[in-house]
Amino acid sequence: MKKWKHRLHEIIYEADTPAGKLFDVFLLITILLSVVFVALESVAAVDAQYHDYLDLAEWIITLLFTIEYFLRIISVTKPLNYIFSFYGIIDLLSTLPKYLSLFFMGSHNLVALKALRLLRVFRILKLTQYISESNTLLKALKSSRRKIAVFVFSVFVLCIIFGTLMYLVEDESSGFTSIPRSIYWCIVTLTTVGYGDIAPQSPLGQLLASFIMIMGYGIIAVPTGIVTAEMTKKKETDTNTQACPHCMTTSHKEGAIYCHHCSKPLNDVNE
Amino acid sequence: MKKWKHRLHEIIYEADTPAGKLFDVFLLITILLSVVFVALESVAAVDAQYHDYLDLAEWIITLLFTIEYFLRIISVTKPLNYIFSFYGIIDLLSTLPKYLSLFFMGSHNLVALKALRLLRVFRILKLTQYISESNTLLKALKSSRRKIAVFVFSVFVLCIIFGTLMYLVEDESSGFTSIPRSIYWCIVTLTTVGYGDIAPQSPLGQLLASFIMIMGYGIIAVPTGIVTAEMTKKKETDTNTQACPHCMTTSHKEGAIYCHHCSKPLNDVNE
Amino acid sequence: MKKWKHRLHEIIYEADTPAGKLFDVFLLITILLSVVFVALESVAAVDAQYHDYLDLAEWIITLLFTIEYFLRIISVTKPLNYIFSFYGIIDLLSTLPKYLSLFFMGSHNLVALKALRLLRVFRILKLTQYISESNTLLKALKSSRRKIAVFVFSVFVLCIIFGTLMYLVEDESSGFTSIPRSIYWCIVTLTTVGYGDIAPQSPLGQLLASFIMIMGYGIIAVPTGIVTAEMTKKKETDTNTQACPHCMTTSHKEGAIYCHHCSKPLNDVNE
Amino acid sequence: MKKWKHRLHEIIYEADTPAGKLFDVFLLITILLSVVFVALESVAAVDAQYHDYLDLAEWIITLLFTIEYFLRIISVTKPLNYIFSFYGIIDLLSTLPKYLSLFFMGSHNLVALKALRLLRVFRILKLTQYISESNTLLKALKSSRRKIAVFVFSVFVLCIIFGTLMYLVEDESSGFTSIPRSIYWCIVTLTTVGYGDIAPQSPLGQLLASFIMIMGYGIIAVPTGIVTAEMTKKKETDTNTQACPHCMTTSHKEGAIYCHHCSKPLNDVNE
Repeated sequence: MKKWKHRLHEIIYEADTPAGKLFDVFLLITILLSVVFVALESVAAVDAQYHDYLDLAEWIITLLFTIEYFLRIISVTKPLNYIFSFYGIIDLLSTLPKYLSLFFMGSHNLVALKALRLLRVFRILKLTQYISESNTLLKALKSSRRKIAVFVFSVFVLCIIFGTLMYLVEDESSGFTSIPRSIYWCIVTLTTVGYGDIAPQSPLGQLLASFIMIMGYGIIAVPTGIVTAEMTKKKETDTNTQACPHCMTTSHKEGAIYCHHCSKPLNDVNE
Repeated sequence: MKKWKHRLHEIIYEADTPAGKLFDVFLLITILLSVVFVALESVAAVDAQYHDYLDLAEWIITLLFTIEYFLRIISVTKPLNYIFSFYGIIDLLSTLPKYLSLFFMGSHNLVALKALRLLRVFRILKLTQYISESNTLLKALKSSRRKIAVFVFSVFVLCIIFGTLMYLVEDESSGFTSIPRSIYWCIVTLTTVGYGDIAPQSPLGQLLASFIMIMGYGIIAVPTGIVTAEMTKKKETDTNTQACPHCMTTSHKEGAIYCHHCSKPLNDVNE
Repeated sequence: MKKWKHRLHEIIYEADTPAGKLFDVFLLITILLSVVFVALESVAAVDAQYHDYLDLAEWIITLLFTIEYFLRIISVTKPLNYIFSFYGIIDLLSTLPKYLSLFFMGSHNLVALKALRLLRVFRILKLTQYISESNTLLKALKSSRRKIAVFVFSVFVLCIIFGTLMYLVEDESSGFTSIPRSIYWCIVTLTTVGYGDIAPQSPLGQLLASFIMIMGYGIIAVPTGIVTAEMTKKKETDTNTQACPHCMTTSHKEGAIYCHHCSKPLNDVNE
Repeated sequence: MKKWKHRLHEIIYEADTPAGKLFDVFLLITILLSVVFVALESVAAVDAQYHDYLDLAEWIITLLFTIEYFLRIISVTKPLNYIFSFYGIIDLLSTLPKYLSLFFMGSHNLVALKALRLLRVFRILKLTQYISESNTLLKALKSSRRKIAVFVFSVFVLCIIFGTLMYLVEDESSGFTSIPRSIYWCIVTLTTVGYGDIAPQSPLGQLLASFIMIMGYGIIAVPTGIVTAEMTKKKETDTNTQACPHCMTTSHKEGAIYCHHCSKPLNDVNE
């Protein structure tokens, strides 16, 4: 591996050196700015006045992201591993929408792809001191994912049954025009969101709704209990911010010399 | 017990064999499809266009459920135990609505019975790897059910007292037209749902409402505390997915040879 | 103390004997019925049709409560202790409204006093098997009452500050017509109730509102954490349902012979 | 240090003596009254009738705060330390708005500064028996602030992504007129506030909204779990209400003789 390639890898993929940190801060700002520009573009009043400036800013950011994408490809040993990794695909999708807008006029829907850029923020987060915090959270969520799945599923079944009941009890004039709509209302109520665009009007409907609300108010204790129980038994892990230059694996132990995934040295400068 | 009967029992009531797993997956899909069809039928626009297809699908599913029901009856040693069990009644109710619609024209209200089909999903869930998760959740809820009852009762009493107070404080024009309606508003507010169809307008009413909201925001901690306290002291249990072919009892210990309920062997193939 | 007095005390104040249990069940039903009647009376449509029946029912219940009140007075050793105790006053207030309605025509506001009857339900609850559950809950709430007070106070200060800010940021036309009203909106938002009758319309107002919402969504963790921490270290207590015939104190230890408050024997039948 | 200065310091900055306690109670009442007056002034109906009285009350309170401010300055050894401390600046800002209103007519926006007065309440709180409770709460929040930051950040990213998706899915007529507005809606929904001024109308939009709601209902468990886990491992601390007369540091250990910050004696009366 060439020395400049290794240096590039260190800057782009790690945050242990001053240059690496600077690169991450710069990238973070660019991503956030890009999202702000996309949001502003959707505001009719702003777009009418500053359309050309926003378009220019979009092009500059797209070019920066394109350069970054190619730098990422050439600075790793196995480019294909990167290209088909989760973040590799996100990186590609971050640059495409603007280029596609040259060919397709009504590329309005590509806005969603632009929002995906935001996911790249989590990669930078992974390279910071917040890594152990987010690992703890993710681990607690992961180890309780089955209990959460059972809970969400039960909530969903309850919503279907009570939604159907409300459809029968309430009049169409109150907004309960179909079963799917009543199920939607039931989810809005059970999760204590309560928009109020659909609301029961008959005494019986309000009685049933009261029951659903108190149930929703009570069973919120279940996911809370699950995650809390997981968190109180958690153990902190020591991980650093390095990424293996050979296989891109992260989450290496503090002080690790060899990659825990491909067994190659993590800091092979220039042999 | 005949060999084919035992085989049938294994397929229908257990999920240890490939055939049993296949049967469960097929049943799960049928139940979910059936619920989707019932929901679609209630959407006026969809029903107008596809009424005949939905009706046909309903008939096919009802026939499948009927066949399943009779297979379940003949594959157990004591059919009456099954017929009058919780799931036996649910299974019967799942098939009836369509047949009844032949005799009664305005069988609109039978839609609720169709929604009950969804409860059958929980039986399949019991046969999967999620059994220990749902057992843990149920046990935590069960062992804290008395505390939850005391809590729900107190919340209810609070809602009646504060609902009556709001009825006196607020004008009829704000929507507080009767005590039951004011109690309904109080439940909507205390559980933090907050539709907004009824909302206090007078300063005194808003002051009282603020107090109710902060109280509701604070006492949600109580059910959460109860369930969390139960969950942190929980112990995982090892149960497998078998159901006794003689008495239908489930939740047998992993590796159990005899039913813990009727003491008969769980796997008596052909003596 | 006379034997019949002791017997009466046992029936009215305790739930250890069959007669005492029967009395409690009867009282519970009467209280609940009374509250239902008061609620029905406030529904214009119901009152128009059944006014005389409801009035009669009210009179019967009031008479029953009056008899009960005098029985309670004569069956204790120190009647004044009972009369000026919390439940003694509630008992008196439960009977008064109906009598007062004879003298004052517009005694509409006495309805609130009638709702107080419901508090008597908690005395009956204290005499049941739910006593240890409600004690645990109350003890957890009591030992964390200071932390909850600090929390509620901080929430209130936050609401005043952010309410004032919103008053400056938002236009009067969005409903933020005065600071008290803006504070009310802030409480509605922070507690995640969200009626929607007052809602920010300007971008800056919505930004500030978003911040308040996420804050409200996050800090709900604080009361939950407080109560849960208290509950996980709780210890169950053994208390029985007896009340001392001399000084009315309850919550005696299971098997106690002398009152822990006035040191007199709890079961002195007839010396 | 002069004796009268030391005595003044004890009255103003501490709550160990009767005079100090009296001063704090008086200050607390003045601050709360001042906030009530500011709020009342903003109510058009009240201001029209009592404008002169409110103005007079405002001037009296401002003068009292001004006197207190100068007393605070002369009673400490290093006045500059106080003037540029957090509470020193708040104290100054509490008095300024009224004086500024003499020079600038449209000083409407200074109302926000007046609301800041309320922050001074926390200083008094620090001098009471509630100090250990608020310390416990603050410590739990502080030690989990990184996890909370990661959580809030993730919630924010989710809101941007789902808000953008809803902007594409929903029609402008439902209120989703721009991406920022859709993000605002997403925050309102995810935090279970649910105003209802913007609500999805299309089936696809309601499906996506249902998903966001259940997610919001579920992930509230995360901050709760974090804070609860911190609180269950908390340890109570013994701190008293003294403030060092030399450097203003508070939170001294019960029975401490020397300041833990500047090492000077806490009670050097007159040597």
